Amino acid sequence: MSDYDIVIIGSGPAAISAAITAKIRKKNILVLGQKDLSPKVAKSHTIHNYPGLPEIDGPGLAKAFWDHLDNLGIEITDAHANMIYDMGDFLAVQSGQNMYQTDTVILATGVVSEKHFKGEDEHLGKGVSYCATCDAALYPGKTAVVIAHDPKEEAEADFLAEYAKKVYYIPMYEGEVHVKDSIEVLHTTPLDIVGEDKVEALETEDGHLEVDGIFILRESVAPDHLIKGIEMDNNHVKVDRNMATNIKGLFACGDVTGTPYQYVKAAGEGNVAALSAVTYIDTKKRGETV
Amino acid sequence: MSDYDIVIIGSGPAAISAAITAKIRKKNILVLGQKDLSPKVAKSHTIHNYPGLPEIDGPGLAKAFWDHLDNLGIEITDAHANMIYDMGDFLAVQSGQNMYQTDTVILATGVVSEKHFKGEDEHLGKGVSYCATCDAALYPGKTAVVIAHDPKEEAEADFLAEYAKKVYYIPMYEGEVHVKDSIEVLHTTPLDIVGEDKVEALETEDGHLEVDGIFILRESVAPDHLIKGIEMDNNHVKVDRNMATNIKGLFACGDVTGTPYQYVKAAGEGNVAALSAVTYIDTKKRGETV
Repeated sequence: MSDYDIVIIGSGPAAISAAITAKIRKKNILVLGQKDLSPKVAKSHTIHNYPGLPEIDGPGLAKAFWDHLDNLGIEITDAHANMIYDMGDFLAVQSGQNMYQTDTVILATGVVSEKHFKGEDEHLGKGVSYCATCDAALYPGKTAVVIAHDPKEEAEADFLAEYAKKVYYIPMYEGEVHVKDSIEVLHTTPLDIVGEDKVEALETEDGHLEVDGIFILRESVAPDHLIKGIEMDNNHVKVDRNMATNIKGLFACGDVTGTPYQYVKAAGEGNVAALSAVTYIDTKKRGETV
Repeated sequence: MSDYDIVIIGSGPAAISAAITAKIRKKNILVLGQKDLSPKVAKSHTIHNYPGLPEIDGPGLAKAFWDHLDNLGIEITDAHANMIYDMGDFLAVQSGQNMYQTDTVILATGVVSEKHFKGEDEHLGKGVSYCATCDAALYPGKTAVVIAHDPKEEAEADFLAEYAKKVYYIPMYEGEVHVKDSIEVLHTTPLDIVGEDKVEALETEDGHLEVDGIFILRESVAPDHLIKGIEMDNNHVKVDRNMATNIKGLFACGDVTGTPYQYVKAAGEGNVAALSAVTYIDTKKRGETV
């Protein structure tokens, strides 16, 4: 028995649309996203082509979405999805220290624009991690570096410092850094992740840093790092017209599936993904092959 | 030189969304649809899952769409498209007595739910026609029957009666019929269109009607009757993720492309179709192969 019918990952127009339709279809849903919805939406200037809402600005559209979620009693859990596991009969979503079982996942994480570091992909799971909360316990007495793209990752570094012997912190953002005194803040640019079988060091613009673990904390994790075996089309998740991916029970919608990056395109795809998930669940519950 | 960059056929959410995005992208567009937009939208009860417009009713959504069109100065030409011709370098759209040249067409005609009559498909162009205005001139001294699904087709029958020697009129709708006195109104059900090389008669529940031409006037013409060679997937137009059909310059969106029949899905697809048409036109104008 799964914890949820549908776990929706994201909080942009695609995720919101999927959540609305899934809720109306009376499914038990969990939305993992950002309380402030998509910052990209809120920061938009006038949006001219969301049909029915002429000349609305970003905050206005964000408010319209919020009102709609409120109206239906949909909550957004302010949390990342760190990893999705294909368990055959269901999917498991790791979010920090929680693991959720679900029949379906709708991936609506938007575009992941940050480039990966040299050596990152090869060392994923071999010292490279995207979640300090998940993997901190693996580092007692060890040395780790946190590469953070957002100030809210400072808490992750603090948590890691409770386990690791030594933590370095490289902020990829402007502004002041507030981390524990035991953490060494380095203002530098990471270049290359090196090591034979596992991570041995991070090369930066300012030199060589010997570490056992490298935590790369970005807003979104690339889909092919979130779930093993997902079929991609360049940087986008490959989907069919039903928004189904190649993995059973996993659907995707919005910018993550490709251009054009448009609000109403994303909302339309969210609706389709939700209805496809509903069909998948209902078929599965009837005991039919899916 | 084409008359238009984009001819959009339809006036439901897909067509409206396509028109909005095409207009914003400064394309020269013609929208062939219904002044009252999609009657299906206007007659809807509460719509719960059009993101940003919670609990809106059909007339409310139709008004929101109208306001958006007004805001951008988009007009809907209250006319049918009767036939689309692939001219190789451009497309030609026949609408009543007008013929428009256009670089692209966006087909957003919705679902065609009426079943075809027995013998209809085989006799198309051989006595079966979907447009009295277009083909009336072919019937001087001849006998024709009009099978009409809407009272507004009464004017078409009247026009046909100016040419044909004898016109029968079979209303497929409830209510009074107002046609010229010379037209014979038959309250019956058409069954079968017969004839060797061309139409010879219409079999009805009440008997045999010898005619030279049969005008079947429905709200929408099935896509494969509107344009020759269009690839279908059962009753729907086959499109790729860019909303492109197999015919160069022809895009489709909304219910005509398949389920789910949902407003925001249709609106999202209209947006994608418009942007794909824009890319097609811009590439063509640069003299590149498309």
